[in-house]
Amino acid sequence: QGTRDHAPAQVALRERLLSAVVSCFKRHGAAAIDTPALELRETLIGKYGEGTKLIYELQDQGGELLALRYDLTVPFARYLAMNKITNMKRYHVAKVYRRDSPAMTRGRYREFYQCDFDIAGQFDPMIPDAECLKIVHEILSDLQLGDFVIKVNHRQILNGVFDVCGVPESKFIPACSTVDKLDKVPWEEVRSEMVGEKGLSPEAADRIGEYVQLHGGLELIEQLLQDPKLSQNKLAKEGLGDMKLLFEYLSLFGITEKISFDLSLARGLDYYTGVIFEAVLLQQEKEHGEEAVSVGSVAGGGRYDGLVGMFDPKGRKVPCVGVSIGIERIFSILEQRLEASGEKLRTTETQVLVATPQKHLLAARLKLISELWDAGIKAEMLYKKDPKLLKQLQYCEDTGIPLAAIVGEQELADGVVKLRDVATREEVRM
Amino acid sequence: QGTRDHAPAQVALRERLLSAVVSCFKRHGAAAIDTPALELRETLIGKYGEGTKLIYELQDQGGELLALRYDLTVPFARYLAMNKITNMKRYHVAKVYRRDSPAMTRGRYREFYQCDFDIAGQFDPMIPDAECLKIVHEILSDLQLGDFVIKVNHRQILNGVFDVCGVPESKFIPACSTVDKLDKVPWEEVRSEMVGEKGLSPEAADRIGEYVQLHGGLELIEQLLQDPKLSQNKLAKEGLGDMKLLFEYLSLFGITEKISFDLSLARGLDYYTGVIFEAVLLQQEKEHGEEAVSVGSVAGGGRYDGLVGMFDPKGRKVPCVGVSIGIERIFSILEQRLEASGEKLRTTETQVLVATPQKHLLAARLKLISELWDAGIKAEMLYKKDPKLLKQLQYCEDTGIPLAAIVGEQELADGVVKLRDVATREEVRM
Repeated sequence: QGTRDHAPAQVALRERLLSAVVSCFKRHGAAAIDTPALELRETLIGKYGEGTKLIYELQDQGGELLALRYDLTVPFARYLAMNKITNMKRYHVAKVYRRDSPAMTRGRYREFYQCDFDIAGQFDPMIPDAECLKIVHEILSDLQLGDFVIKVNHRQILNGVFDVCGVPESKFIPACSTVDKLDKVPWEEVRSEMVGEKGLSPEAADRIGEYVQLHGGLELIEQLLQDPKLSQNKLAKEGLGDMKLLFEYLSLFGITEKISFDLSLARGLDYYTGVIFEAVLLQQEKEHGEEAVSVGSVAGGGRYDGLVGMFDPKGRKVPCVGVSIGIERIFSILEQRLEASGEKLRTTETQVLVATPQKHLLAARLKLISELWDAGIKAEMLYKKDPKLLKQLQYCEDTGIPLAAIVGEQELADGVVKLRDVATREEVRM
Repeated sequence: QGTRDHAPAQVALRERLLSAVVSCFKRHGAAAIDTPALELRETLIGKYGEGTKLIYELQDQGGELLALRYDLTVPFARYLAMNKITNMKRYHVAKVYRRDSPAMTRGRYREFYQCDFDIAGQFDPMIPDAECLKIVHEILSDLQLGDFVIKVNHRQILNGVFDVCGVPESKFIPACSTVDKLDKVPWEEVRSEMVGEKGLSPEAADRIGEYVQLHGGLELIEQLLQDPKLSQNKLAKEGLGDMKLLFEYLSLFGITEKISFDLSLARGLDYYTGVIFEAVLLQQEKEHGEEAVSVGSVAGGGRYDGLVGMFDPKGRKVPCVGVSIGIERIFSILEQRLEASGEKLRTTETQVLVATPQKHLLAARLKLISELWDAGIKAEMLYKKDPKLLKQLQYCEDTGIPLAAIVGEQELADGVVKLRDVATREEVRM
C-alpha cells in the first residue's frame, strides 16, 4: 500500500526528470553522496515533529534497532558529524519512507524519491540561502511546469512574532506547526487549534493572526522593520535583517518576481532555524480537456544550523541550508501531461534488429549480433530459431528500432548484410 | 553494521562502474523497471532456501506485514505475474538487503547494489540463456578485471546425478545446497554433511562425489551423454541436451574459452530450474605491492521457469533466465586499484569559478554567476563577501576547476571578464 512499481515507460520519464534536476545540482558544483536506507532508530527520533510517528521501524531481529530513513537531511547531518566534515556542497537522489496515508493521484506515496541539495559550512549570511532559491527557480523554469511562486519566511521572524504576541518560548514549536496548516485550512480553524489544543490565549492568537496573514515583497520587510513591536524584538529584527539581505541577493539573481515573503509559511520540521521556503505551482487553466491536478508544494527547504551538532559528541555545530525537490508531485504532472499528449516514450535504445528472411539461419544471426555487440552497437534479435521476417519487422515497429540488419542465404553467400530502414523501407547492401 | 556511507569519490567510482554495466544491458535491448524496496513478507518467504532467515522484516505497525527485498529476481517475478506480462527483457539496478554477517573487505554488505538483467518469455531453448552468458563475458571483459572463468551447470543434470546415485527426489534440494559449498570447502566436508546432516547413504554420497568433481567443456558433455547411467536418465539427458546446444551458441559468440561446464556448481537459491552459472575471477599475481583481494563470485544467475507461476493465481508459468552482476565485489577491486594508482577522481563537474580580486564586489560576482548558470555553465563561487584571490584560486586547484572568471574593478569599468586558465595561468579578457 502506498508504493508502486514503475513500468519501463515510467522509468524512462522519471529518468528524464531526474536528469534535469541532477544537472542543475551539478551546475551549482555539488558532489553526490550515498547513505544507507537504514538508519539507527535513535538517529531519526525527535527530528521530524509530528512526522516522527510516520517512521517505518524494522523488527528487532537481534543487533541494532533500525528504521527506514524519513528524509535525506537527517542522514546528511549524521554523515557530516560522523566524518567531522565542516564544509560540503552535496546532492543526493534516493528513496525515503513514510507511513503516511497515501494519496497516489496527488503524488503522495509511502516510498518516494527525494532530490536534495545542501550547502554545509560557516559562510557569510544568506549567500548559500539565496543559491538554494535560485536552484528552485532554475529547476521549475527548466521543467516548464507553468507559473509558480516561492514562498519564503524565517523561523526567527516567526519566533519574534510569537514572542511579541505573548506566546511563551516553550510553545514556539507547537505554535509553529499550527501556523503551518494555514495553506490547507482557513485562519479560523488554525486559531481554534491554537487556543484549544495548543493552549494559547485568545488574545495572543488574534495578534498572531494579524501577522501571519501578511505576505509581500521587500516593502513588507521594510514595513515590519518599522513595526513598533517587532522592531523592538531581537529575534524578529535579526530575521528581518536576513530577509532584507536575501532579497538583495535574489534581486541580483533576477528572480524576486517569483518570490513571496509569506508570514504564514512555517514548515513542519523541528530542525529549521532560519530561512525557510516552499515552492507551489499556481493553478493552471484547464486546457484541451486536461484534468487540473492539485499538486501543492513541489519544492521546499530551509536553514538548519543545529542539526549536525545533535550528532556530534561535543555538540559542534555546522550551519546548513538546503532544498528538496518534490519529484513525485512533478512526476504526476508530467505523467498526466504525457498521457494527454499521446506521445510514446521509447523504453529501449536498440539501434538495430538482426533478422533473417529464411529458415535455418540462426547461426548467422548469432554470429552477426555478437559482432555488433562487440562493436558497441545496441542490437537485438528474436529468440526464435526461425522467426518470420514480417514478425521481425513488426517487432521493430512496435519497439521503435530504426534499422534491421538482414542476413539471408544470398547475403550469406555474398558476404554482405542488407541494412533496412524500417520507416522508409529503404535497403542497402553492405 | 554491514552498511556504509559513500563519500563523493566513492559515488563517482560507483557511477563509472554502474554506467559500464547498464550500457551493456542497454546494448542488449533491455528496458528498466523499478520496484519498491519493501515487499509483502509472504512474497519473499520460501524462495531463497537457507537465505530466508536473512530477510529483514519490518515491525508490525498496523497494516501489511512487510520485509525488505532480498534480491531483484523475486520482485521481478511478482511484477510479471501481477501485471500478466509474459514477455519482457528488463534490467534493474537497486539496493537489496540481507541480514548476513558482513565481510566488508571482501565486498559483503547487508545493504548492497544488485544489477540484474533478465529475459522472460517462452522462446526457443538456450538462445536467451546464451545471451546472459555473453553479457557476463562482455561486462567482465570491459571492466578489465583480469582473467575469469564462467562456470556453467544445469539443475536437471544435478537432479539426474542425484537420481542415478540413489537420492530420493525429496532430498534433491538439500543435496543441492550441500553441493553448493564445494567451492569453499573440500569434498570430504561436503560428503560428511551429506551423510550426517542431510541423511544420504555413504554409497550415494560417494557416487555423487565422482560426478560433481568433474569439469570441462564440450568433450565432458559428450562423455556424460555416453555415461551408462546418466544416458538412461531422463532429467540428465534433457539437461545435457540443453548444455550441448548452449555450447553451440556460445561457440558462435566466440566465448567458450572462458566457459567451464562444472558439475560442482549448484547455486543456493530454490527457484532455479535449468541452466545455472557463476563467474569467478582467477587469482591475479601480486603486482606493485598491491594486496591480492579474494573476491570469489562476481556474477551469477540461471533459469527459473517456475517462479512467476508461484505468484499467478492460476499458476501460469512464464519461463525466465537472468543474470546478476556482483557490483560490490567488483567495486572493492576497483576501489583498491584506484587507491594503489594514486589517481584522484573529480567529484564535481564545475567548469569555472567566479572570482573577485578586490573587496566589495560580491554583487558583481552574484550577477555574473547567475548569468553563467542561466546559460547552462557549471559555475561556483566562494560563499564569502570578500574572499582573497589566492584562496579562490586555491579552491580551483583543490577541486579541479579548470577556469576562473575574474571580475575586478577594472574589468567592471571596462565591461569585461578576465578568464584565467588555472593550470597555465594564462589570462584573456573577454
